[in-house]
Amino acid sequence: MTRKALARTRAGLGVEVITTIALELFNDFGYDGTSMEQISSRLGVTKAALYYHVAGGKEEILRLAIQRVMDPLWLSLQEPGALEGTAFERLTHVLGRQVELILRGMPDIAYFLHPKAHHPLSSEVRARRRSYDGAIQDVLDAAIADGAIRQDVDARLMLRLVVGMIYSMNEWYQSTGRLAVDEIRNAVLALLLTGVTPGPSLLTADEVSAYSPISTESNARATAPPRRIS
Amino acid sequence: MTRKALARTRAGLGVEVITTIALELFNDFGYDGTSMEQISSRLGVTKAALYYHVAGGKEEILRLAIQRVMDPLWLSLQEPGALEGTAFERLTHVLGRQVELILRGMPDIAYFLHPKAHHPLSSEVRARRRSYDGAIQDVLDAAIADGAIRQDVDARLMLRLVVGMIYSMNEWYQSTGRLAVDEIRNAVLALLLTGVTPGPSLLTADEVSAYSPISTESNARATAPPRRIS
Repeated sequence: MTRKALARTRAGLGVEVITTIALELFNDFGYDGTSMEQISSRLGVTKAALYYHVAGGKEEILRLAIQRVMDPLWLSLQEPGALEGTAFERLTHVLGRQVELILRGMPDIAYFLHPKAHHPLSSEVRARRRSYDGAIQDVLDAAIADGAIRQDVDARLMLRLVVGMIYSMNEWYQSTGRLAVDEIRNAVLALLLTGVTPGPSLLTADEVSAYSPISTESNARATAPPRRIS
Repeated sequence: MTRKALARTRAGLGVEVITTIALELFNDFGYDGTSMEQISSRLGVTKAALYYHVAGGKEEILRLAIQRVMDPLWLSLQEPGALEGTAFERLTHVLGRQVELILRGMPDIAYFLHPKAHHPLSSEVRARRRSYDGAIQDVLDAAIADGAIRQDVDARLMLRLVVGMIYSMNEWYQSTGRLAVDEIRNAVLALLLTGVTPGPSLLTADEVSAYSPISTESNARATAPPRRIS
């Protein structure tokens, strides 16, 4: 064992640093393209030292990483703010927490936000994400039933678009960037709740549909030449 | 040449079907993992027939695909609706067209929406996307200056979140799904412009920030235990 590796082991090679480094490698080379060799070498420790912490090897690291990254999202659904108050208050809480947890979980969480990430536990990750999304859908549906959330947009579509905006932060967020987590969270909530127009909103739903740029013509191709819009 | 291949060539093997099939393969196996052999075999034609249409091989197919998929977005910025009217009207036009063109361009466009898609022209695709996004940012900035778009959210962050919601449709949209393009476009515009709350909005921007679920604590980790939220 080299001096550096020994130092690392003594200084506390632990599950957190192992999963962080492994997720970096999974992100760059894929799960299948990453070996225990690479993980130990990037950590600066021997393979023996690595296996001492994760006897189950790469799949155990993956399982630990999933827990570390996804458990906080699930737990956020059990917080008082997610359980108490009106459906609208609960919805605002869980969406705000989702934004925060994703930003604070970056870059580790990035690997699991790629819909195409392929690994032995992908169906488990999809199932966890489905049940988390399902819980948010329930709160959204309750807020729609209350009249606090609009009823003129399909509820499942609305959830997908809302969550789509939140997950898309993955593409650009840098923890070293100029915007703080709280600033981004407040912006996301403001846009999702009241839109890009100044609140109270400038437009009613009817006025919004009046802006539809093109009349119904479902089979037009993306390659069709642009037409004049009335 | 097989009968089937001959029939395909005669029936009009053309750039459109070639790029569609190639993008399917690029999406599944990556650009590097796809050969002209595979493309011709999935098309049911000989390699010779394929090269007759695209003498420049795989990279020419890629270039044609980029044009086919990305030109309509660029052209939409030249439509009368994008050039005439208030900044707010122009913004609504270009965002509505973006939603439509992405939905109608699916699944071909999917490959270019993956931030990690790697191919010889990726820097060109990024540059095209940057200049397209930049043009939309200009319209957004003009609408902010007009007072038609809120001024309490960072303008660059706002664009990223708006475009993030739109691009995220890529993860779930199926042209055979239950929702028509127009319905989705109207929903996206409604949510982006006026938020998930019924219009006119239920909340002012100040009220929205009051919902911030957690006080500022930028260094908290995603793994921190959930705390009671006041």
